[in-house]
Amino acid sequence: MTECIFCKIINGEIPSTIVYSDESTFAFLDINPANKGHTLVIPKKHYETFNEIPTSEIWHLFEVVQKLSKAVEKGLKAEGYNILSSNRRLAGQEVDHAHIHVIPRFKGDEMQVRLGWNYKKYEEGEAKTVAKRIKKHI
Amino acid sequence: MTECIFCKIINGEIPSTIVYSDESTFAFLDINPANKGHTLVIPKKHYETFNEIPTSEIWHLFEVVQKLSKAVEKGLKAEGYNILSSNRRLAGQEVDHAHIHVIPRFKGDEMQVRLGWNYKKYEEGEAKTVAKRIKKHI
Repeated sequence: MTECIFCKIINGEIPSTIVYSDESTFAFLDINPANKGHTLVIPKKHYETFNEIPTSEIWHLFEVVQKLSKAVEKGLKAEGYNILSSNRRLAGQEVDHAHIHVIPRFKGDEMQVRLGWNYKKYEEGEAKTVAKRIKKHI
Repeated sequence: MTECIFCKIINGEIPSTIVYSDESTFAFLDINPANKGHTLVIPKKHYETFNEIPTSEIWHLFEVVQKLSKAVEKGLKAEGYNILSSNRRLAGQEVDHAHIHVIPRFKGDEMQVRLGWNYKKYEEGEAKTVAKRIKKHI
């Protein structure tokens, strides 16, 4: 996967501001931060989206996400934080190497508080049908 | 925590469209969905935000988040998906019981693709200082 920007960041071909690194996990500052301290946590192995990461790696990955989230909160005295993973272009994924954003929030940071969506409405009985379609695949 | 809406949903006092339930984890359809199938995954124990959840529970919680994320993707034929946890009012948290949104994305769904933020810029050398402040707390 030599064409992947994040793989290149992991192996040092592209410089980054590293925040954390262990055997399987890597974290660095997003170069285009939503707020200063906006950190990306990624598995060192290349997986395209969140759902492709093996369960055995999900465990440690989110242990690290929480470790970083606590450090970002305390270190930057954040007044809130968002954990976000966007998967596939349509959802806003810009690099096809699964990644988790840890975004500190500050008063007056000009991010949209709810990260911008309008509510949709279920028709009568529709929620049950939708839940059924999901449950079929659990 | 009898005043917590999500605790009431878990114990059945408030009805919900349940998608998944096990010993420690619960998932149901968001009543105000960003898209139909928008699911909330929560620990059954009451923790205020993501960072308060014990690491031992983070593991299983995100195993379930991924299980649900896969089911939402397949069951609803989503073309993308966002995993989001907003923590504290300033970050958009509306119920003070830690929760993870699993949001399916569809072409033309009128959500803002990147969930709405503008890039900020680091001054020369500032990224390193910010990373140092975070790393001090890891």
